[in-house]
Amino acid sequence: MSLEDRVTELAGEVVPADASAVEAALERHGQLLKPPGSLGRLEDLGARLAGMAGASPQPVPGNPAVVVCAGDHGVLSRGISPWPKEVTATMVESFCSGGAAVNAIARTVGARVSVLDVGVASELDRHPLLRMAKVSHGTGDLSEGQAMSREQAARAVLAGAGIAGELIESGGVDLLVTGDMGIGNTTPAACLIAAFTGRPAREATGRGTGIDDATLEGKVRVVEGALDLHRPDPRDPIGTLAALGGLEHAALAGLILSGAVYTTPVLLDGVVSNSAALVAQALAPNSVDYMIAGHLSTEPGARVALEHLGLEPLLDLRMRLGEGTGGLLAVPLVQAAARVLNEMATLKEAGMW
Amino acid sequence: MSLEDRVTELAGEVVPADASAVEAALERHGQLLKPPGSLGRLEDLGARLAGMAGASPQPVPGNPAVVVCAGDHGVLSRGISPWPKEVTATMVESFCSGGAAVNAIARTVGARVSVLDVGVASELDRHPLLRMAKVSHGTGDLSEGQAMSREQAARAVLAGAGIAGELIESGGVDLLVTGDMGIGNTTPAACLIAAFTGRPAREATGRGTGIDDATLEGKVRVVEGALDLHRPDPRDPIGTLAALGGLEHAALAGLILSGAVYTTPVLLDGVVSNSAALVAQALAPNSVDYMIAGHLSTEPGARVALEHLGLEPLLDLRMRLGEGTGGLLAVPLVQAAARVLNEMATLKEAGMW
Repeated sequence: MSLEDRVTELAGEVVPADASAVEAALERHGQLLKPPGSLGRLEDLGARLAGMAGASPQPVPGNPAVVVCAGDHGVLSRGISPWPKEVTATMVESFCSGGAAVNAIARTVGARVSVLDVGVASELDRHPLLRMAKVSHGTGDLSEGQAMSREQAARAVLAGAGIAGELIESGGVDLLVTGDMGIGNTTPAACLIAAFTGRPAREATGRGTGIDDATLEGKVRVVEGALDLHRPDPRDPIGTLAALGGLEHAALAGLILSGAVYTTPVLLDGVVSNSAALVAQALAPNSVDYMIAGHLSTEPGARVALEHLGLEPLLDLRMRLGEGTGGLLAVPLVQAAARVLNEMATLKEAGMW
Repeated sequence: MSLEDRVTELAGEVVPADASAVEAALERHGQLLKPPGSLGRLEDLGARLAGMAGASPQPVPGNPAVVVCAGDHGVLSRGISPWPKEVTATMVESFCSGGAAVNAIARTVGARVSVLDVGVASELDRHPLLRMAKVSHGTGDLSEGQAMSREQAARAVLAGAGIAGELIESGGVDLLVTGDMGIGNTTPAACLIAAFTGRPAREATGRGTGIDDATLEGKVRVVEGALDLHRPDPRDPIGTLAALGGLEHAALAGLILSGAVYTTPVLLDGVVSNSAALVAQALAPNSVDYMIAGHLSTEPGARVALEHLGLEPLLDLRMRLGEGTGGLLAVPLVQAAARVLNEMATLKEAGMW
């Protein structure tokens, strides 16, 4: 079986969330010890979690993990970011040594951190937190040709799916958080968002780490040029990913798909994760049932992608760091949504009728 | 010394947050291992926390507590809520037995729950989580006369301040969350918000537990009538509180003031807490330095009050339950803001320059 066929098979295993569990959870919320609807979005989130688990009330996710997928980008040579590609490897080292933002926030919410090297340009030292699954030493320049071959894209998708399956099956992880690292990776994210939503490059392209007006203009032109060059067909998700994506975007799409296959909720971080979620949606539309938008990045493409996914973000803290930081901050909200359904007394139990 | 003088003395002990610690924290954020500003509001929040603690980086709050202040309301006889006042006591029992929303969410974020009976109409059984500080068996009807005497208002403020001081001094609590319970208590909240902000009653008045259009119209008229009757002077906070407030609103104002005196951050819950925060602000303008708006309630008065306080809420989940639920959900955000400042490596340490 080809790698692409294995991706297709994985996507085919995604089943829709259980509508009857969603209904049961909403009904239960109407009986709990509070005015109906007074917990707002926490009620809807709890019902979605019940639908994912196929049970109401569902277990409370107590074992979250963030997976930071890392890769480098040939398009960096087009001047779309002021940071050199070596920063990707340095940041991976920092994730492993525990000094990055993702580590501090993961400790706050009790999440474990895993890092997946799916395409960092340099060779990295082994480390217990780092999974080695390098598909290639970075992508090709998407503004001149394919970022990857179709086979490389499929291999990276399967690498992301693999780590998710391992964390869930062997690690007991019950809540996945998507994270990314890759200097230049908001450019392929913008390309994917424009390709899958049909919106103009300019609406999907932002300042990334904080580039100036001139660099942003150049970045928009790079995205526009790449879309003109490749003329991506969103009905061919692997082709679109191979032409315009990044290896970490591909791995994140696989991570999301695998979470959906295991009916495990997947908390999305910012714009890179959102673009990967569009790939997962194109491969398996029902995978959206298992996605939760953790936060709204300030990158404009994030809003465009989330609207296309039909997901409303839980947090809006004007963050734009990536690494999984925004997704992690929403972990306690997911846990709280599950806990109230599991642990609250009913009006009847409290003697209120 | 009169009770009112003791409140004045307490308010006089509030000192402004340390501007140099705020500056130091912002400067540190510019040196940490991430693009400057990329953690968005988490950076501003961390700097505010440093200012409260007078140190950068400041300790991470690891011992949060929610205090649910409970009271009943004479104005309930005006038909401003469909729920009978007995529900207040029933809910206090549920907080003590652990089956309410506040308990489930407090467990999620690792916060302890304390309940303060400052004005429940009935006699309550003793319980380890319940502090007995009843000032009276509910308030008078604010639409016909004073809700409380000035002395009662001051006594309730001091009761809230007392429990805060006890939790901080004996309990090691380093992050306070405000909570409220009191059937009918969004009506005095609306009165206080209109009185302290000068905005029309209609803008400050909402549906509380979910009343219908006709009940809402009646509620707006009750608030308008009370403002006409008492003509409150916002420069006389105790007089305004006594005329139009509730005993739990008064206790929450004291809790907030005491938090500020101890330079301990206070996470505000929804509209009742927001109205109490206006009382605290009127008594000690610098107390706002120690307030953090945990969430935006759907009650329209919440937005009006927070704008007057100059505080932007961290969460907006369309919640309107009270009890401290919205404030508690923001606890991990506060902890994360402190942790990144404490635990992240600098760009220099990571070898980035």
